[in-house]
Amino acid sequence: MFLKNKIQLTLATLLVIVSSCKAQTKETSNAKKINNQEHPSLILTKGGVEKIKAQLGTVPLFDETLAKVKAEVDAEILNGIEVPIPKDYSGGYTHERHKKNFLILQKAGVLYQILDDEKYAKYVKDMLLEYAKIYPTLPIHPQTRSYARGKLFWQSLNDSNWLVYVSQAYDCVYNYLTEKEHNLLEKDLFRPFAKYISVDNPKFFNRVHNHATWGNAAVGMIALVMDDDKLLETALHGLKKDNIDPNEKDDDGAFIKKKGQKVGFLANLEEPFSPDGYFTEGPYYQRYAMYPFLVFSEALQNVKPELKILEYKDAVLLKSINTLLNLTDADGNFFPLNDGQKGMSYYSRELVSAVDIGYYFGGKQTDLLSIAKDQGEVLLDDTGLSVAMGIRDGLETPFVKKSINLSDGKNGDEGGVAILRAEGSKEELTLVLKYTAQGSSHGHYDKLSFSYYEGGNEVIQDYGMARFVNIQQKGGGNYLKENTTWAKQTIAHNTINQNETSDFNGNFEIGNLNHSDKYLFDVSNPNIQVISATEVNAYPGTELHRTMALIKAANFENPYLLDIYKINSKTENQYDLPYYYLGQLMSTNFKYTKPDELKPLGTKSGYQHLWVEGEGKSDSGLAKISWFNKERFYSLTSVVSNKDDLIFTRIGAHDPDFNLRNDPGFMIRKKNSKDSYFVSLLESHGHYDPVNEIATNAFSNIKNLNIVFNNDDYIAISIKTENGNTSMFLFSFNDNSKTSKHQIKIEDKTYDWIGVYQLTEINK
Amino acid sequence: MFLKNKIQLTLATLLVIVSSCKAQTKETSNAKKINNQEHPSLILTKGGVEKIKAQLGTVPLFDETLAKVKAEVDAEILNGIEVPIPKDYSGGYTHERHKKNFLILQKAGVLYQILDDEKYAKYVKDMLLEYAKIYPTLPIHPQTRSYARGKLFWQSLNDSNWLVYVSQAYDCVYNYLTEKEHNLLEKDLFRPFAKYISVDNPKFFNRVHNHATWGNAAVGMIALVMDDDKLLETALHGLKKDNIDPNEKDDDGAFIKKKGQKVGFLANLEEPFSPDGYFTEGPYYQRYAMYPFLVFSEALQNVKPELKILEYKDAVLLKSINTLLNLTDADGNFFPLNDGQKGMSYYSRELVSAVDIGYYFGGKQTDLLSIAKDQGEVLLDDTGLSVAMGIRDGLETPFVKKSINLSDGKNGDEGGVAILRAEGSKEELTLVLKYTAQGSSHGHYDKLSFSYYEGGNEVIQDYGMARFVNIQQKGGGNYLKENTTWAKQTIAHNTINQNETSDFNGNFEIGNLNHSDKYLFDVSNPNIQVISATEVNAYPGTELHRTMALIKAANFENPYLLDIYKINSKTENQYDLPYYYLGQLMSTNFKYTKPDELKPLGTKSGYQHLWVEGEGKSDSGLAKISWFNKERFYSLTSVVSNKDDLIFTRIGAHDPDFNLRNDPGFMIRKKNSKDSYFVSLLESHGHYDPVNEIATNAFSNIKNLNIVFNNDDYIAISIKTENGNTSMFLFSFNDNSKTSKHQIKIEDKTYDWIGVYQLTEINK
Repeated sequence: MFLKNKIQLTLATLLVIVSSCKAQTKETSNAKKINNQEHPSLILTKGGVEKIKAQLGTVPLFDETLAKVKAEVDAEILNGIEVPIPKDYSGGYTHERHKKNFLILQKAGVLYQILDDEKYAKYVKDMLLEYAKIYPTLPIHPQTRSYARGKLFWQSLNDSNWLVYVSQAYDCVYNYLTEKEHNLLEKDLFRPFAKYISVDNPKFFNRVHNHATWGNAAVGMIALVMDDDKLLETALHGLKKDNIDPNEKDDDGAFIKKKGQKVGFLANLEEPFSPDGYFTEGPYYQRYAMYPFLVFSEALQNVKPELKILEYKDAVLLKSINTLLNLTDADGNFFPLNDGQKGMSYYSRELVSAVDIGYYFGGKQTDLLSIAKDQGEVLLDDTGLSVAMGIRDGLETPFVKKSINLSDGKNGDEGGVAILRAEGSKEELTLVLKYTAQGSSHGHYDKLSFSYYEGGNEVIQDYGMARFVNIQQKGGGNYLKENTTWAKQTIAHNTINQNETSDFNGNFEIGNLNHSDKYLFDVSNPNIQVISATEVNAYPGTELHRTMALIKAANFENPYLLDIYKINSKTENQYDLPYYYLGQLMSTNFKYTKPDELKPLGTKSGYQHLWVEGEGKSDSGLAKISWFNKERFYSLTSVVSNKDDLIFTRIGAHDPDFNLRNDPGFMIRKKNSKDSYFVSLLESHGHYDPVNEIATNAFSNIKNLNIVFNNDDYIAISIKTENGNTSMFLFSFNDNSKTSKHQIKIEDKTYDWIGVYQLTEINK
Repeated sequence: MFLKNKIQLTLATLLVIVSSCKAQTKETSNAKKINNQEHPSLILTKGGVEKIKAQLGTVPLFDETLAKVKAEVDAEILNGIEVPIPKDYSGGYTHERHKKNFLILQKAGVLYQILDDEKYAKYVKDMLLEYAKIYPTLPIHPQTRSYARGKLFWQSLNDSNWLVYVSQAYDCVYNYLTEKEHNLLEKDLFRPFAKYISVDNPKFFNRVHNHATWGNAAVGMIALVMDDDKLLETALHGLKKDNIDPNEKDDDGAFIKKKGQKVGFLANLEEPFSPDGYFTEGPYYQRYAMYPFLVFSEALQNVKPELKILEYKDAVLLKSINTLLNLTDADGNFFPLNDGQKGMSYYSRELVSAVDIGYYFGGKQTDLLSIAKDQGEVLLDDTGLSVAMGIRDGLETPFVKKSINLSDGKNGDEGGVAILRAEGSKEELTLVLKYTAQGSSHGHYDKLSFSYYEGGNEVIQDYGMARFVNIQQKGGGNYLKENTTWAKQTIAHNTINQNETSDFNGNFEIGNLNHSDKYLFDVSNPNIQVISATEVNAYPGTELHRTMALIKAANFENPYLLDIYKINSKTENQYDLPYYYLGQLMSTNFKYTKPDELKPLGTKSGYQHLWVEGEGKSDSGLAKISWFNKERFYSLTSVVSNKDDLIFTRIGAHDPDFNLRNDPGFMIRKKNSKDSYFVSLLESHGHYDPVNEIATNAFSNIKNLNIVFNNDDYIAISIKTENGNTSMFLFSFNDNSKTSKHQIKIEDKTYDWIGVYQLTEINK
């Protein structure tokens, strides 16, 4: 996608290149050290700096970013250097101070290069010397929660963050420092630092995991600055020895490292990314990992271009930038799949890096410039300069997010995520259907779950994670226990829960072996976009098949969402399908009672966290609820039987520390059922203007919704609107060919169609 | 405030003027009808139209508004005329259609005048003739909820809205219509319409109430168009006969009309406005009433300038515009005192009118232009033209909302509302303390309640009303029963509730006789602004005295709020003081337990609507809670005893139709207490950036808060910050002179001060 001439690079090829490169290095290293060892060379380059200097004052976005960074660093220099003895968790003073230090050090290094002002180099030098003073005698961090405690921070992960940034600072001031200072810093700080996060923490370093990616990049970056190919080799391919017990598991029940598993930076690049550039942990962690992936790759590209790291695995890294930008709502916020904190967006510094690097190295796609323009800042390096110049020259084109299917898994054959997008009368309607693999340790048990957006508003929410990142009051800013007991559980998601037990019985090891499968992704007709996927392992003996269609139809103000959930089971079960709507309930078409006292819905698997706010049943065959949120109306119309329980829930039971958000939900429960269908239609409609106090189109347009035909192979659903129009949605469950012919008879009328689905207007 | 030479105009004077004016009319009416009867003359005037036409194309804001209005009316003309037989409540089709009709008719009339395009006059004529066709045989509206049902709408109030707007349309097209058409319309539509809302509905028309104001204005406006002085007299002074039983009460328990009470437009202007321009029902209804008040006054000013209506009661109408603009938060939203729907703001059409009329007739205050600029539209008349020209010419100055005290009551001696404002590091902190009279039928039982804002964010919320105006699903868009059972009750507000009973035992008649009293309003020192008020009638035998200080102090990121609630009672009682914070609880300094099942806090007076989410006690003498909302942190630190119950609540119990918002609250309960103090300090601090995941200043700065001295006359509160600074707030309860000298001794140290309060730094 990014490179015109894609080069297939296998791991084997790379190893050969790296080896030959090492051989060369041995021969020429002395000569190179004397003649060619340039600094800076990792992110800023000598040539790049010259170019930047030549352009200063002529590239507004670059100049603005530079001024902002200068003001920030100048204020810190005035504030003075603080290198406290580590003691706090994230959110606490020492944590936040060391975090700020590495961010400022990197920026100060850049300012020294661009502005030629020695005060910045001196600041970096002085602070590094402070670190070099304390590091040799620093004990392991006193806070004990992590499986791999750091020294500056409570986890080696944060220490690695530090080194990824500080390596860049060291590179920038390298030539300012004396030989003696180099020796001191490397002996007392950088080498033991790199050793600590690798050799001393093999379970952290020798894994395929976002933690290890940071560790690998950190060691690799400092190796590049120090021109240490042996250390670089460790970064790329991991430690040769680690003594990790192949049976050892982490807190999530995942093996730390399977026997014979490849580790190191290249393996981390190989395994978690699908060929579509989807990172298996989900967008929040993809964003987090993007920085070390890209910044180390940029450094490798600059220092070791012969590695062609950016072409690795069909240029997956560059591809993944585009993927990540697609995993956002209209406001640029990432969909909070798996563990993800809401509010994280493409305005994060990691995405500024990603967009700039992607533009510069990925063929200068002009649509990235419009994202960069929104971000309002650029990297202060060659890539950022190139972006800022592109914007200055008016080259940007809109970044259009289309409906897209993203495969999961190293080879793209472990399910995926589908995003369907359709323009609405006010904003875009966006469906996210998740049918991925487990998503590693940050994965949720949410097979075939969905979330739904109108512009940047959540209509049906994914809860995200139960964590307040870096807010110390809340469990030190770390994962809260409710993340396990609630946020990861199946019932916390908008999908089927069987028998009040989560997918795979909540067993990570089993979950990690399985994935859902795509049945159909078809967006060829912009008026009827369909995603359909199956899950046959989450509940042994039960097959789940969910089909969601985003349909633009006449008589509807906005596209509507049709949700068809087919369940086949060998046994009788209870099926619960919740919809976590946001907003205030306006009306229902059925009677319900609200209890005088609230009790939890269940005792485990997340059910213990749900208050039952109301219960009802519908005799009409339909359950319709309407709600109101952010000045808009929504209606969910569901086909139900008079035996189905209709339950209103609110999150927050058994939450002793007020860690959960008290959000509402609506649940349809079918008891003692084997094969079942859940069919619902979700509308966004109307508007309320609180200044003029006028409500428009405040009612659902659906008069009736019926399953008029169903057998193992087909379903037919009739949709009748208030003005009497009827349409029929036909779907084939067992033949996903787009060319097969189908025929069914409903009440003496024959319906023929080609392909998996059809939407037909019924003339009456 | 608005007029340089204020003229004291008494009701008596006015009556004389009106009478003499009537006499003149009798003598000259025939001549006038032939020679001088101009149309339009009410809002648009012949001279004004000429001026507007001359300026077209040169005044951007006026031209833009004109283009927008033209587009809107053109679309409606294309859509065709719809005059359905009335049947719906607000939110329903016929209601919304007739509402739209009157808004469009008024606009079409204006377009006819300004654009000289007969299609607009024809549209008005055609629609009026449609109304004239149905009106004579229209029964009373079929919906029965109102005490004064209308014909076009379910209440005469809306019928009056219709006539206020349509009178303007009739005025604009008057000269386009034939004599025959005049006669038809007046005979079949306007005269019976005016009769219906006055003579046929005396309980609606002959009151002092916002309903009557609309009715009076409607009759007065059409009287002006028809040049009918007798009808005008009815509008100004009410019906001479009404047969209203002086003992008759409305739904709220208020007398419809007390014996001998003056009624009509002038009485409605006289009574509900305080000399400061505060309207006793509160800003939401002030906004609603502003339109008929101002537009009829503008019409009177134009047609009967000799009445000097805008100078009436020391120009209270013009003054009230400024008052209303001050009753808004940083986003322009009205504080939802009494019955008020959140989201209503100075962007409403009523305030566009008010600002334009206020500017034009009130001495052209240039700060109004900045509000008009924000509003982005103007009236299409002389006033709007003048505003748009002022903006075009760059005359606007900022509208600065200062701390202000607004008296309530006809004579300004029935309590009031104080607004304290102080600049914060990010946005303004705003305190609203309500110590008014009952506020007529829309009043809440919330003596000495407060709400608190940071910019446009509610920190401690006033619930507002339990109603979704014009959203039909929710009780036809009308007041919900929870407005009475919850929103009006004392416990729904941030003030003391005694013995789980509302102020005045919730008795409107008694409440309506009483008001709180100002003890001190002192904003002379911008760093320590103080409001203090007393309430001695709400709970017989108990005296309430609340003092709130908004304090800017060193070591604090933002001004903090000190809340001192002193209670003296003859009997032992239970006192509850809730704080309805918004957001998620972060931490507490005391232990609490959360129940496995939620039960309501009580059985009546609003308590039945509160779930008890948690209960605790504090042994430390302090209860501190911190919460998080909209990326900011807040902490409330309260002096408590180990016997006080600390209760976490959530609104929503006994709410069978999901009519309430499920918002949290924190309550301090003192049981079996006679004299008591509630002392709390509320901080806004810090920030959380979800993109960078950095929390700054996330903790309270208050280490300790103590009542170090108290007796009948004085209190002294020491405030100790985390860094060890201590300050002392001293306050005199029984001498509100700003010059009195005070002395108290605390632990052998003598404190002297002058005036009611003092804040002293303690050196230790």
